[in-house]
Amino acid sequence: MFEEKKAEWLRIAESLKPTLRRETVRPVSGIPDHSLSENESIVLDFGNHFVGHFTLRLSSQGSHPDAPVWLAVKFCENARELNETLDGYTGWISKGWVQQEQVHIDVLPAIFSFPRRYAFRYVKIDVLALSSKYQLVIEDASAEATTSADDSVPPSIISDEKDIAIDRVALRTLRNCMQDFFEDGPKRDRRLWLGDLRLQALTNSVTFRNYDLVKRCLYLFAATADREGRISASLFTEPKVVADDICMFDYSLFFIQTLLQYIQATGDQATRNDLLPLALHQLVLADEQFDPKTQLIRDSDKLSWCFVDWELRLNKQFCAQAIWIYCAQAAWQMKADPVLKDKIRLRKEAARKYWYDQERHLFVSGAERQVSWASQVWAVLAGIAEDTDAASCLDAAAVCSDIVPMVTPYMMHHYVEALCRIGRKAQARQVIRDYWGAMVDKGADTYWELYNPENPDESPYGSPVVNSFCHAWSCTPAWFLRSGILKENA
Amino acid sequence: MFEEKKAEWLRIAESLKPTLRRETVRPVSGIPDHSLSENESIVLDFGNHFVGHFTLRLSSQGSHPDAPVWLAVKFCENARELNETLDGYTGWISKGWVQQEQVHIDVLPAIFSFPRRYAFRYVKIDVLALSSKYQLVIEDASAEATTSADDSVPPSIISDEKDIAIDRVALRTLRNCMQDFFEDGPKRDRRLWLGDLRLQALTNSVTFRNYDLVKRCLYLFAATADREGRISASLFTEPKVVADDICMFDYSLFFIQTLLQYIQATGDQATRNDLLPLALHQLVLADEQFDPKTQLIRDSDKLSWCFVDWELRLNKQFCAQAIWIYCAQAAWQMKADPVLKDKIRLRKEAARKYWYDQERHLFVSGAERQVSWASQVWAVLAGIAEDTDAASCLDAAAVCSDIVPMVTPYMMHHYVEALCRIGRKAQARQVIRDYWGAMVDKGADTYWELYNPENPDESPYGSPVVNSFCHAWSCTPAWFLRSGILKENA
Repeated sequence: MFEEKKAEWLRIAESLKPTLRRETVRPVSGIPDHSLSENESIVLDFGNHFVGHFTLRLSSQGSHPDAPVWLAVKFCENARELNETLDGYTGWISKGWVQQEQVHIDVLPAIFSFPRRYAFRYVKIDVLALSSKYQLVIEDASAEATTSADDSVPPSIISDEKDIAIDRVALRTLRNCMQDFFEDGPKRDRRLWLGDLRLQALTNSVTFRNYDLVKRCLYLFAATADREGRISASLFTEPKVVADDICMFDYSLFFIQTLLQYIQATGDQATRNDLLPLALHQLVLADEQFDPKTQLIRDSDKLSWCFVDWELRLNKQFCAQAIWIYCAQAAWQMKADPVLKDKIRLRKEAARKYWYDQERHLFVSGAERQVSWASQVWAVLAGIAEDTDAASCLDAAAVCSDIVPMVTPYMMHHYVEALCRIGRKAQARQVIRDYWGAMVDKGADTYWELYNPENPDESPYGSPVVNSFCHAWSCTPAWFLRSGILKENA
Repeated sequence: MFEEKKAEWLRIAESLKPTLRRETVRPVSGIPDHSLSENESIVLDFGNHFVGHFTLRLSSQGSHPDAPVWLAVKFCENARELNETLDGYTGWISKGWVQQEQVHIDVLPAIFSFPRRYAFRYVKIDVLALSSKYQLVIEDASAEATTSADDSVPPSIISDEKDIAIDRVALRTLRNCMQDFFEDGPKRDRRLWLGDLRLQALTNSVTFRNYDLVKRCLYLFAATADREGRISASLFTEPKVVADDICMFDYSLFFIQTLLQYIQATGDQATRNDLLPLALHQLVLADEQFDPKTQLIRDSDKLSWCFVDWELRLNKQFCAQAIWIYCAQAAWQMKADPVLKDKIRLRKEAARKYWYDQERHLFVSGAERQVSWASQVWAVLAGIAEDTDAASCLDAAAVCSDIVPMVTPYMMHHYVEALCRIGRKAQARQVIRDYWGAMVDKGADTYWELYNPENPDESPYGSPVVNSFCHAWSCTPAWFLRSGILKENA
């Protein structure tokens, strides 16, 4: 499907590849005023989170250097990473993501530019070896920081001091994920994921307004759809543009929502006309997952068949059905197809009929009728729960003791969106202050991939050392604060 | 002194900078026929010792790589180094010399060229991290090996199989130390040392005959003499040519001997005329160390005031006196100065008078009248011990139970030279077979900086991991075997 279009879609995507803005930045503290001996250690603090290439200008004191300098250099997004090590690492994603290097420098003085790009605020340098005849002098340390975001963000009407701080960190998060494309996180995975893109594009529309970058990413996904026309969950751009082999039910569907947002923000009808058939085709492909008799989606044990949240216990059957409805409604906004409207209605009714526990006022999911926060939130967002039911399922969730919790800022975004939808603006604002505000209080320059107030060590990967601390899907407070959605009458 | 000459001397040295010969070499074994997973390890064997730059051509198998490759790569001159680690390293020279790296490679396929130069036969690669979604494929491994030696060595008359092997390893040692200049060792210190240069130039004269490289090194030392005209023990060429701050009594004097050898081999009178005043000046400077009354050299506790051998217990007073005489005799060959001849005679007599123990037939050194192999050898080479005394001091040494031993091939060279001098050619040949031949038997491709048959772990640096296994001063068997000196009637 769409094979004949893909070369042109890729060409369009590549023609929109941004020129990165480059800025030379220097640490605000940590450059020692003395020369360093073997086993000494320093921490440079750049004062904010940056993405870029790091350079050391080194010289020596004492005799002429008669042996190589051997340094361990660690780049940390977050102060807590400074003291973490990979000793005994048991996580299940690659420890190759941890930003630590060992380098030898044969000749001093030297300007040593690290070849890789890092995401960091802090740089820890351990002098692993020198000879006893000389000491190392750090003459200068700098980074060439990059972003494709234009810092001319529209002035906001935010006046509350805490909200200003929350917004600032959100902007920094989005900005530092904006490189050649919208990256999920500049430390990890440095990749274009559809679930992240959707929230980035949303926040971009009220901040950097780099719509070409959104368009580029939409076309990248279009150009890498598989032979059946299925859009993958993520894609690689290096060494060439190619889809990842992960497809996720919800992420493929979110292409529709992301396209709609883009068209609403830009009025770009050419892109609408070009990509709408592919977007609508995602609904057709999703139909394979539904039981035509019951209009219920089939469940799956496969962890990543549908993402929803980084909560390994979560049963995703109900959310998948709700997300289909949510995205089908977005499709309907772009093309008012009466057959689709009918299907939406049937699947809403089926979901409500099978999965609404009227006594408990809670939506359940899966054969074991699991109760989760995610199900309640998506019931509201998809309009499966309407009117008073919507409010009562959120209220019931709040007092349910054995409910599967939300663990990512990504899921928290949907919770806040659900609160807004039922008109609980003050509560939505409070959730932002409590959840994202707590990261700010803990010193975040950018928002984290994961934040569980009750367990700061939480990681879906088995170890927090591989967590990302500047993660795209966490940037949406700027959207809530700037879009006007939090206003009582919005 | 000589300040007005130095710019021109440096210009001459730099005009003789060689163009390195480059050869692409590949491992003879070790490239795996399967793809590698995390924690796998391979050892590439290049089949011989090389000096050069290493390149990996990598690709992947499985899904698209979704995390960086993290490799530990270790370059070993010697198979025993493969299993050595720096854990608990307590040596006193920099562990920065150990040729081990850690690298991350973000994108596959990749051609990854290591920026530094290494000396190695073996390359060990540990896969520290990959993701579980892909495996690493080593498509190719190669090195661009360099030397300034021309492999068109004159045919030798060596016919004995063991001697052929000993000669081959000697040639390889010298060849791999011949780069931009005569390096002491391409792993460590990668530097021009006068003591090494003297023996390299000697061996070069019967092998590669790259006299321009010898001339270049003589001029480098001349150009970096200090303000008093003292030639340093070693010098650096990067980032610019500059003397090391180590001066050693014997090494400064060996400039004379090295110049003489060069002139004898080439007949280059222009260089003789240009550098002879500086060479003779080293004798004048050395005079400061002599007591004018006794004509004995003053002793020093400073370990490196005079090198002689890497034996920390060695008292060097006698050897220093002998080396002065040895080099003064070389000076006299270049300029027959009767005053110098007289001084040589006086200092020989004084040495004999004060330090020859007539009863034991041994030369002693220092206030504690230490008996060492080095003293006997230098007594012979300097002609302090003449005729039957020369033979008897070597014989007495051989049966002396508490004698300070010889520990380096450098000192062993002088021992073999001393044996030749007293006509013990068969014994000289046997020492070469026993000592250097044992390294060949142990699998040496190049001769080691240190070899103590009774203690293979010996290191003057506190740990054998920093020892050099291709060391210039060990290359002289080729000179003994090719120069004809071992012939009975020579």
